[in-house]
Amino acid sequence: MLEVALDEARKGQAEGGVPIGAALFDATGALLGCGHNRRVQDDDPAIHAETAAFRAAGRRASYRDTIMVTTLAPCWYCSGLVRQFGIGTVVVGESETFKGGLTWLRRNGVKVVDLKSAACRELLGAFIKARPEVWNEDIGVE
Amino acid sequence: MLEVALDEARKGQAEGGVPIGAALFDATGALLGCGHNRRVQDDDPAIHAETAAFRAAGRRASYRDTIMVTTLAPCWYCSGLVRQFGIGTVVVGESETFKGGLTWLRRNGVKVVDLKSAACRELLGAFIKARPEVWNEDIGVE
Repeated sequence: MLEVALDEARKGQAEGGVPIGAALFDATGALLGCGHNRRVQDDDPAIHAETAAFRAAGRRASYRDTIMVTTLAPCWYCSGLVRQFGIGTVVVGESETFKGGLTWLRRNGVKVVDLKSAACRELLGAFIKARPEVWNEDIGVE
Repeated sequence: MLEVALDEARKGQAEGGVPIGAALFDATGALLGCGHNRRVQDDDPAIHAETAAFRAAGRRASYRDTIMVTTLAPCWYCSGLVRQFGIGTVVVGESETFKGGLTWLRRNGVKVVDLKSAACRELLGAFIKARPEVWNEDIGVE
């Protein structure tokens, strides 16, 4: 499942954007929707990878059995999305570059799996090195 | 400033959507962007009033001096947005219908003002009475 999110992150990289991707799956492993950060591409600060995947998945009465897979630990904005809509499980590629709200999510009953993926870390690490000002803007760091 | 958000909520009501509106202002009171919940209109679960206003305001290096005015206390998703991007002040029309993440935001250094507006409460209350299933979907309640 991480490969789907990582492919999205690579699409973002190819477009010159922040290379973070995400995908939402149902309990059977079927893909509901996927997407990537579009800050640079669409000049849109509201589209993080997780919100793009959530939007692509569309409206549902319940997200309890869904799994959000993302190449990077979700920020507060995306952690809030997970908590508000009751997404049951979050799988992150890595949480070393950015730890986001993982502890908070665990404390609030979300199952969190950290795959410690070097591929995710290296992809984003290269972008941060090249465009630190865009990365800081993306996480609200002045 | 609440009138701008309330006008957005009324637009949402006229469109048959969840009547919650929001507006982002700078420190001088100039409007940066506004919007309303678009779950029903766009069939988009990711557009809450606050995320619509944030998107309309566009990319900024800092949100420290901005003020998010919303007709209803922000849910976890939108509270996470406020925290991640460092929006300094949140003004809510009311927090009786839904308390959202107000306490959490206060604890994390955000200035929160609650206007206890009957107009906001009544507008949303009428919608919840008419379309409880859409309201529940909007806040992730099964």
